[in-house]
Amino acid sequence: MTSIVGWAHTRFGRLDDSLVDLIGHAAESALTHAELDGHDIDEVVVATYNAGLQPLAFPSSVPLERVPTLRGVPCIRVENACASGTAAIHHGIRSIESGRARQVLVIGAEKMTDRPAQQIGAALLGADLALAGSESTVGFAGLFGQVAAEYRGRYGLADDTLARIAHKAHRNALDNPWAQLHRELSVEFCATTSAANPVVAPPLRRTDCSPVSDGAAAVVLAADAAVPARCPRQVRVAGIGQASDFLDRSRRDLLEFAGARAAWGRALDEAGVRSPRHLDLIELHDCFTIAELVLYEALGLAANGRGVSVLDEGVVYADGPLPVNRSGGLKAKGHPVGATGVSQHVLCAMQLTGTAGAMQLPNPRLAGVFNMGGLAVANHATILGAVA
Amino acid sequence: MTSIVGWAHTRFGRLDDSLVDLIGHAAESALTHAELDGHDIDEVVVATYNAGLQPLAFPSSVPLERVPTLRGVPCIRVENACASGTAAIHHGIRSIESGRARQVLVIGAEKMTDRPAQQIGAALLGADLALAGSESTVGFAGLFGQVAAEYRGRYGLADDTLARIAHKAHRNALDNPWAQLHRELSVEFCATTSAANPVVAPPLRRTDCSPVSDGAAAVVLAADAAVPARCPRQVRVAGIGQASDFLDRSRRDLLEFAGARAAWGRALDEAGVRSPRHLDLIELHDCFTIAELVLYEALGLAANGRGVSVLDEGVVYADGPLPVNRSGGLKAKGHPVGATGVSQHVLCAMQLTGTAGAMQLPNPRLAGVFNMGGLAVANHATILGAVA
Repeated sequence: MTSIVGWAHTRFGRLDDSLVDLIGHAAESALTHAELDGHDIDEVVVATYNAGLQPLAFPSSVPLERVPTLRGVPCIRVENACASGTAAIHHGIRSIESGRARQVLVIGAEKMTDRPAQQIGAALLGADLALAGSESTVGFAGLFGQVAAEYRGRYGLADDTLARIAHKAHRNALDNPWAQLHRELSVEFCATTSAANPVVAPPLRRTDCSPVSDGAAAVVLAADAAVPARCPRQVRVAGIGQASDFLDRSRRDLLEFAGARAAWGRALDEAGVRSPRHLDLIELHDCFTIAELVLYEALGLAANGRGVSVLDEGVVYADGPLPVNRSGGLKAKGHPVGATGVSQHVLCAMQLTGTAGAMQLPNPRLAGVFNMGGLAVANHATILGAVA
Repeated sequence: MTSIVGWAHTRFGRLDDSLVDLIGHAAESALTHAELDGHDIDEVVVATYNAGLQPLAFPSSVPLERVPTLRGVPCIRVENACASGTAAIHHGIRSIESGRARQVLVIGAEKMTDRPAQQIGAALLGADLALAGSESTVGFAGLFGQVAAEYRGRYGLADDTLARIAHKAHRNALDNPWAQLHRELSVEFCATTSAANPVVAPPLRRTDCSPVSDGAAAVVLAADAAVPARCPRQVRVAGIGQASDFLDRSRRDLLEFAGARAAWGRALDEAGVRSPRHLDLIELHDCFTIAELVLYEALGLAANGRGVSVLDEGVVYADGPLPVNRSGGLKAKGHPVGATGVSQHVLCAMQLTGTAGAMQLPNPRLAGVFNMGGLAVANHATILGAVA
């Protein structure tokens, strides 16, 4: 069994820090938080997507440069598009379970905002096998726009459903000090096309899309048997699940996130959690509002076509029985690609240790993370549990 | 304990295949060679460096596209600069040792030759923390040129020492059907500057540098307990070792490959091999001839400054007691970055199963692989053993 025994999170947004700074800061801060130093670490895993955005293409060379006590420790990079962060944590868990490591430092980071919009768009398109290298101007928003259009055609989609998800994200991010966007947006604003909220890829508007972000997050994983007594805060990894899928537009049902469903099911099974309704919070991959809606269904919170029910019933709001993206999610917290999955784990760990500050939920015991790369191509899920 | 139960290797060189084709072909061929199909595979690991060379930046999405029976299987990418291939194999071994996978398919691939020289140079510079993004025109050759100059100043370096290493590589590659360069080069040619062999970064000449290459290689790993009886060829993983180092030019001795020494020592220890001289062959990372010379010393074949002795004594030639780079090495076999480490394992597996064709050595029992990223920054070593 593996535990998370320390973590760190930079502010997400448009930052002055370089990629090297972001990785370095997160690494140092997570070790400090765990009350460990580099000598206690057996392996380091770095998650970045990068895709040519930064000239440094060998990010696993960074942690040793910033934390000299890590010298000699094996470092690698793991990449799985927007799921790179959780993929890196899942690698670290395998290292611990293999007996090769007792403590593993995992850092997710991305530096995006210093590049021109066109380059960022091309880099993100690189996460789709069919679109990579194409001249598409709407990119992934176009793909998720197709999902939304398909959803509307098959099940119906009220004008304000996606707007309610965007509103929830922005509302939740207001008291998240690490979030990129601290601006309350009304459902009406999000539901209406205007100069300030243009259509990006019909029916998706700007308020349906996560922003371009810089940021980093890190966790220290430890084998239960080796958890240093001096680590003051601990969260247990109750289960993980991973499944990959292929996005064949001619054959795959765009609304069937089979890989997401499989990864999530495996994580719940491993954790012995019979229903996702038994969780106390979920951080899920809302790169676009429509992704959150479809994931309500793929993760088993609602029947297919009935995702809106968890909004109608108040289930997923901050004061509901199962808050989803209490942090603001990718949508409002920000989405520095390689950092996102690690950030989701950090936010859950804060909640489960009662250290989430103004965001704190009342005594949560079980949290779920769902992180995906591409349109449900790489799917990674983790169930975390409170210890004390 | 983990075994290698199947493998594949494309020709290395200037190929018509895309990155997607290379990954797909290697994946299919390795499964066929192992007499398995996608349903037998629990995880897939893809190694590429890429660094912006190809627009597809999410290569783990490829195997499922080409091998439909892999649908649902977890796929990730591992990157560790030029050591990405072995890093991916080491990830796969952890997955097996963790109990999460019984059979893992590992694919290393790189597509480089379709890009302009300047872009390739910039991508490779991305593997050095200090040089990434710089305007250097000599790139990594410049860095290894400094190593050679330092070596010459400290220990002396005869005019023909590096030339003898280049000559050996080209000679060895002549009967390797997968090698990029099938051209015998005399020691005299390699030791002399000419229009055909210009100085690239003093004292390194063109014949001291590995080429730009396309190619792919793959292996199927299996837990010993689960090795399917129908897999016709097996090689055991006797030990692995990994260590990272930081290249601080102002502090680190450029000739002290401490990380290489540490990784190699860990692999030998785990395999219970007391001396590298007990191995029957080694495939090591000769991105430049000077790297092979320094690695003779770091891997314990010769004392510091005495690497040339293993050439003088005939130890490392094809007909010597411990052939090094019988395949032609990176220098003549080619160096498609993400494929290189996997290729090293494949060439050793062929030797250990008596299937190396014209390259076959007489009854080898133990083989060593050493693969590095940057100037001995990421270091990965594996010891492989014959089974039958």
